[in-house]
Amino acid sequence: MAAVAPLTLYTNKGCPYAQRAVIALKETKIAHDEVEIDLQNKPVWYQPNINPASKVPAIVYGAKQEDKTVAPPGAVKLAESLVLVEFFAELAPDSHLLPADPVQRAKARFFITLVGDKFNPAWNAFAAKGEGEEAVVAAINQLVGELDPAGPYALGKEWSIADTAIAPFVGRLYLLAKNDVGNWPVGEGPKFLEKLDNIGKWEKYAKALLARPSFQESFPADYLLERLRARYNAQRK
Amino acid sequence: MAAVAPLTLYTNKGCPYAQRAVIALKETKIAHDEVEIDLQNKPVWYQPNINPASKVPAIVYGAKQEDKTVAPPGAVKLAESLVLVEFFAELAPDSHLLPADPVQRAKARFFITLVGDKFNPAWNAFAAKGEGEEAVVAAINQLVGELDPAGPYALGKEWSIADTAIAPFVGRLYLLAKNDVGNWPVGEGPKFLEKLDNIGKWEKYAKALLARPSFQESFPADYLLERLRARYNAQRK
Repeated sequence: MAAVAPLTLYTNKGCPYAQRAVIALKETKIAHDEVEIDLQNKPVWYQPNINPASKVPAIVYGAKQEDKTVAPPGAVKLAESLVLVEFFAELAPDSHLLPADPVQRAKARFFITLVGDKFNPAWNAFAAKGEGEEAVVAAINQLVGELDPAGPYALGKEWSIADTAIAPFVGRLYLLAKNDVGNWPVGEGPKFLEKLDNIGKWEKYAKALLARPSFQESFPADYLLERLRARYNAQRK
Repeated sequence: MAAVAPLTLYTNKGCPYAQRAVIALKETKIAHDEVEIDLQNKPVWYQPNINPASKVPAIVYGAKQEDKTVAPPGAVKLAESLVLVEFFAELAPDSHLLPADPVQRAKARFFITLVGDKFNPAWNAFAAKGEGEEAVVAAINQLVGELDPAGPYALGKEWSIADTAIAPFVGRLYLLAKNDVGNWPVGEGPKFLEKLDNIGKWEKYAKALLARPSFQESFPADYLLERLRARYNAQRK
């Protein structure tokens, strides 16, 4: 375990944004505590004491914390998944989560911008409303255009913040599409996956993401499938 | 001038995102060339040769570029304002644009997340539709809560990526509201500014942003006022 100041992660096993933080902590091997937050029934102390935005992931960092319901004097509270991923990467530079070369860092951050601005909105719309399959394919084509030619990861042989940012969402895409769980026409999920396999380096990249231990150890597939099936059924018109 | 590899910035004097890059280049004193891109009449080479997204800012970096309409072999093409701001900060660590302390970096990035997710959408809606003045005030209150108590800048005495990211938008807010240019009811612009002056440390912070030479030198007020007046008049119902 990398030794840094005391760190508590507030997380939820169903949240893809929280999974980004968990993956980064596993990759960096930063010693920390974890507190699971029930998002359907949040503890009353969470929003006032830990994260004003009342979301996960969030952390308390920098001072010994006996009581996890409050940040002790001298500790800082930080939130937002991508902010935390970069923070953990900077605390543990030997993890190579953040590459040493500024150009490679810029490429990783540009890739992450595409994930947030193009891939995630398109995938969410397709899963929730069965609309815009073409937009998902377009976003994946754009991501593929940014992948290092040699792979297996976005920047090449080292797993980085770019892979950390996208893996939870790619994991959900494959899980749901394979099991035909989404508000698309019945049977479209598996067909959609076949289309993705034809997009250049995408299949190889997706397999590398899903095979990474830090991803697998933070991806409770059965729990997610049950939970997301219920959510999409409730949304179905 | 900080000596780095050859760098060309593709920019537009009216674009607040491009202004972020220009401010960062001024703060870091990185030697570079600039090419002004007419966004209403883009050169045919720009999208295929420089930025597939066809937006500014974008850069070509790392190899001598005789012909600005094409990236030479060995150069990289990078885009997205925040990616570029962090890139310039990393090329010139002595500029302190990116603080040395990881906690301070995380605070700067969290501040920037609030700018993108809360402040900008609220301000854009208010200016374009006269709606959601309360959302702008709420976003500013949230930003104020993140400001360093001593100031004058977001993180304290050093100008950082956080100030770089918000300054172009705060500049437009003050310019337009003062001149009552926006699709709010006539006379509401100046009244709106009076409300902002009552939000704790906001007035002092906004003044510090607007007084910074790197901001002033990249903010063509008369040009922007004329251009934005025409845009909002066209949008007016």
